[in-house]
Amino acid sequence: MKHKKWADPLIADHPEMIVTSAEEVKGHWQDRFAQAQPLHVEVGMGKGQFIIGMAKAHPEINFIGLEIQRTVAAIALKKALAEELPNLQLICGDGSDITNYFEDHELDRLYLNFSDPWPKTRHAKRRLTYHTFLAGYHQVLKEEGTIELKTDNMGFFEFSLQSMNNYGMVFDGVWLDLHNSDENEHNVETEYEQKFAAKGQPIYKLTAHFKEAE
Amino acid sequence: MKHKKWADPLIADHPEMIVTSAEEVKGHWQDRFAQAQPLHVEVGMGKGQFIIGMAKAHPEINFIGLEIQRTVAAIALKKALAEELPNLQLICGDGSDITNYFEDHELDRLYLNFSDPWPKTRHAKRRLTYHTFLAGYHQVLKEEGTIELKTDNMGFFEFSLQSMNNYGMVFDGVWLDLHNSDENEHNVETEYEQKFAAKGQPIYKLTAHFKEAE
Repeated sequence: MKHKKWADPLIADHPEMIVTSAEEVKGHWQDRFAQAQPLHVEVGMGKGQFIIGMAKAHPEINFIGLEIQRTVAAIALKKALAEELPNLQLICGDGSDITNYFEDHELDRLYLNFSDPWPKTRHAKRRLTYHTFLAGYHQVLKEEGTIELKTDNMGFFEFSLQSMNNYGMVFDGVWLDLHNSDENEHNVETEYEQKFAAKGQPIYKLTAHFKEAE
Repeated sequence: MKHKKWADPLIADHPEMIVTSAEEVKGHWQDRFAQAQPLHVEVGMGKGQFIIGMAKAHPEINFIGLEIQRTVAAIALKKALAEELPNLQLICGDGSDITNYFEDHELDRLYLNFSDPWPKTRHAKRRLTYHTFLAGYHQVLKEEGTIELKTDNMGFFEFSLQSMNNYGMVFDGVWLDLHNSDENEHNVETEYEQKFAAKGQPIYKLTAHFKEAE
């Protein structure tokens, strides 16, 4: 993404909508919303189509979109400002710092959508489902909290299934062709997903939680 | 499979190769082989191409092919007789009786290849990865014993991933397109797999064990 001149000023002008020092809000995220409600976070929101769509579809949930690239976050910010949603906040920050941004057990759900697959084995540690990342999610999610993952990348999905299983996560649902399944009925697409789906290749989805089923 | 007149007499003529009362051999399977070696069983061997191919490729392992349909088992028997393999035995029997056929922890590995997917929800109990079947495998496998599953059926693979995860099994490997992966190098195909692969649709594979990773 090319740097856009307007990005930094727009972010600076809207501290009510986008947080650039998320560690300062740790443990107090509910104060930034119209009301305290279940809290869902997307790690890597991109241009924000998914998190904005979710916030519109689910007013009973508070959503936070997190994005590391400032210019990309600014594009999401611009869209979010146009919607004036009382249940949406954005963060410009790094997914690997998630335990600095959220208090232990502060979150109800995490979304990982079309994360960078880092296909080379030597880059496995950077994949958002590598066990070190899972440990962070485990810490910030409530005991019954869930992770929802979508990807078009077969290798990343194979890795995620094994990594999340090996960490001890409990699968709630697995879909190997989301767009041709019943699960697609309430699916909110990301920008990438929308473009990719046109190619006819499958979208994979996994939902899981950390707690052992009783 | 149409009943073949020659099937029953052929089975009756070869008690050294095929067992029709497997419960009588329970705990003593190694006695039926040239030497005691790790014991691998295929549940639902069909016409036997896979288990015969495996027995030829791995003389250091003892293999047993299990098939419920007598005529199908007889076709496998005919092929097996032509090969004269000291490390192969067949069973005409029912996969759901596996704990009657094998002593606790008698087996090192189970193969589930292209099992009937039983797609209707009300038939879920018949799927070979339903939790009641898994409990049986758990009982007859050694602590470090493994299950290897292959299928072309997406719904059955989704179900198996979730069911085996929810049972507490540890995944050793997941492949969403076996034939285009490195894992295919040593793959021994079943008859069905060979025909199906020509259509270009993916073959799924999962390997897993029951014991928690240390």
